[in-house]
Amino acid sequence: MRRSRLLLPTLKETPAEAEIVSHRLMLRAGMVRQASAGIYNWLPLGYRVLRKVEQIVREEQDATGAQEMLMPTIQSADLWRESGRYDDYGKEMLRIQDRHERDLLYGPTNEEQITDIFRKSVMSYRELPKLLYHIQWKFRDEVRPRFGVMRGREFLMKDAYSFDTDFDGAKRAYNKMFVSYLRIFARMGLRAIPMEAETGPIGGNLSHEFIILADTGESEVFCHRDYIEHDVLSHAVDYEADLEPIVGFWTEKYARTDEKHDPAAFAAEVPADKQVSRRGIEVGHIFYFGTKYSAPMGATVSTADGQSVPVHMGSYGVGVSRLPAAIIEASHDEAGIIWPDAVAPYTVGLINLKTGDAACDTACEDLYNRLNSNGFDTLYDDREERAGAKFADMDLIGLPWQVIVGPRGLANGQVELKRRATGERHEVAMADVPARIAAHV
Amino acid sequence: MRRSRLLLPTLKETPAEAEIVSHRLMLRAGMVRQASAGIYNWLPLGYRVLRKVEQIVREEQDATGAQEMLMPTIQSADLWRESGRYDDYGKEMLRIQDRHERDLLYGPTNEEQITDIFRKSVMSYRELPKLLYHIQWKFRDEVRPRFGVMRGREFLMKDAYSFDTDFDGAKRAYNKMFVSYLRIFARMGLRAIPMEAETGPIGGNLSHEFIILADTGESEVFCHRDYIEHDVLSHAVDYEADLEPIVGFWTEKYARTDEKHDPAAFAAEVPADKQVSRRGIEVGHIFYFGTKYSAPMGATVSTADGQSVPVHMGSYGVGVSRLPAAIIEASHDEAGIIWPDAVAPYTVGLINLKTGDAACDTACEDLYNRLNSNGFDTLYDDREERAGAKFADMDLIGLPWQVIVGPRGLANGQVELKRRATGERHEVAMADVPARIAAHV
Repeated sequence: MRRSRLLLPTLKETPAEAEIVSHRLMLRAGMVRQASAGIYNWLPLGYRVLRKVEQIVREEQDATGAQEMLMPTIQSADLWRESGRYDDYGKEMLRIQDRHERDLLYGPTNEEQITDIFRKSVMSYRELPKLLYHIQWKFRDEVRPRFGVMRGREFLMKDAYSFDTDFDGAKRAYNKMFVSYLRIFARMGLRAIPMEAETGPIGGNLSHEFIILADTGESEVFCHRDYIEHDVLSHAVDYEADLEPIVGFWTEKYARTDEKHDPAAFAAEVPADKQVSRRGIEVGHIFYFGTKYSAPMGATVSTADGQSVPVHMGSYGVGVSRLPAAIIEASHDEAGIIWPDAVAPYTVGLINLKTGDAACDTACEDLYNRLNSNGFDTLYDDREERAGAKFADMDLIGLPWQVIVGPRGLANGQVELKRRATGERHEVAMADVPARIAAHV
Repeated sequence: MRRSRLLLPTLKETPAEAEIVSHRLMLRAGMVRQASAGIYNWLPLGYRVLRKVEQIVREEQDATGAQEMLMPTIQSADLWRESGRYDDYGKEMLRIQDRHERDLLYGPTNEEQITDIFRKSVMSYRELPKLLYHIQWKFRDEVRPRFGVMRGREFLMKDAYSFDTDFDGAKRAYNKMFVSYLRIFARMGLRAIPMEAETGPIGGNLSHEFIILADTGESEVFCHRDYIEHDVLSHAVDYEADLEPIVGFWTEKYARTDEKHDPAAFAAEVPADKQVSRRGIEVGHIFYFGTKYSAPMGATVSTADGQSVPVHMGSYGVGVSRLPAAIIEASHDEAGIIWPDAVAPYTVGLINLKTGDAACDTACEDLYNRLNSNGFDTLYDDREERAGAKFADMDLIGLPWQVIVGPRGLANGQVELKRRATGERHEVAMADVPARIAAHV
């Protein structure tokens, strides 16, 4: 993409309303713009990151055997009256009346809806287990939305739902999601630690939050240092195998959110030099809640011996639109964002130091075509701007690689190759650029 | 995917509420389920088609140089008061108040929102032209939603917006979208004819609807027979070249929707044997509306000579969630859907005629792995069901190829390969199946 074409309104000044670094950098890097309180437009650069994050979530959910579908954003209030949550949910639920004065709502979550689909579609234990997910926008009418997309009102979430005949089956589904979440966040370059958590309005009796440690985190978390130092699962997993060893490893030591924190147990179970107390950002949350929805809503299956039993369910969320912000919290410096390769909006930023100079223009066009045809998405800064402004912008938006083309180097057929994460720079022959990048990606 | 795992609740009976064939078949094939009036759940099979349609739209929009972004579903009423459309829009707009009693709405379209983004981000003519699009859910509170996803209340749309300094630039953008739309629908196996149309609540003075001829269409259309017989653009296009010859061809002869129809002109311009009067389904609509939004909302750019001028805009919609239904209207038979290859939810349906028989099971597992590893998405009907029920279901869901495995054929190492569209069947050696399919796809 040529920068002159891209809608990329970077800002030099730090917007006053942004309290945390990810919010500041997302605004300054032209990734998002607020539409109204807690509701954001994703501009092209930001949307590319969001889609990469979404695609990683999708691939890792598909790997478990989960099936993607899509439930609508607007739900009927009737379903929520059946489960008993319509009145419980309070003012965070955006309630709506249509032209016929029917009560609707903008879904904050989808347990009722998926239970309704299930009870109308699945009748027999022979059709279980089922594991379904969707990636859809949701709305929670926060009193005071803040921190940009980290705590917006309209937000994108992946939520999965599992259906099994009994607890053992449900625990197998829970384990699949647990392991899938380890992989999802690891692929984005994040260290997300599973921690015991309260179940909140979703309900249930088994629940883990996946937490990224960050000083700007919304809540305090407590865990054994081993979890911070241990490599998060990065190899492929056979989801049909027994996953209990992996889940066991990540749950045997102390790791709890503040709501579940027990100072006495923490002191007793964790040696003093292994006690970690930090702030954290929640990026995923998984629940097992048994028959909480299936029983009142009549989501039953017939068993082998002809009985009718309510199904055991779980739900499993990933905060998709919050992840680009969480990644920035974990990966930035004074100059701007440092994107991990897997979620970078473009792999390479190509800087023409002297737009209008025939040699520089020709070399850049050539490199631009060569990089793109080698499969490296490239953003080419072809604007007539000062070199300093181009450097600052490119560091700000944080693409993994910069290729800098100026008249002096070109005289020797050389360009500069810079790795954003380390700041390392090398003079490289033009023809070698794609191979040098390929060697690292 | 194994059928035993997939949530695919096919129906033998025709649902009473469905008035048109696409609605009937989408319900029967387990593609969608109504959540509430005019609001649909997309089950896994339907969602695969929706995503393929969406991806074709995305690729063909990207090819024009348009940039993808995402605007939220919930908008502030204030913007619509600025453009003057808040009161105009009537009861079709879903109006909402949040907990602070601020007026919001569920966007039925996005001209105001994109104009607001533009005026805050782009200041100079040097940054033009710009072409932006998003694919997002919208809501129109129809009095009487009907025909399934063809005329739902919550629906998915691709809408693009163009920004240029003058009419000539805007016309170039209009032409790009015009040609892109010809390609989009052709890739889905549809013949969509551009027809002069009214502009409705979007406004403007140049507008074409892209219409698929179908007896179940919502409105009457009138056109020259040549457009029905001419091949729709299927080759790649250089969007930087002059597109006027292509647009000229598709606009020089009579082709109008009923609102624009002029019987006298029709009779005068079109020879009697070339006059076509049919019903049609609108799948796309493009508008040029000049400064209708930019002038009242102050979306201006500075020109080369230092003046400030409102930008010329156009908007360009594709009814993404309506397209799977439109494709079915155009491609089905008595037995069910016939998916064009490009949008089929799976390429191959593998039928095990005798689940439980060791030879059949082994052969099917082998074919299932071989087809998938050759890149043919395969749905394997591994259920214990009568052969007749499996045949009927497979015809109903309309995958392009069926591979039928039974004990008799297997004795000679043969399976049956059936092309859904033609009904042609061939005995084929097991090892040859992937190659035979590859030869046609």
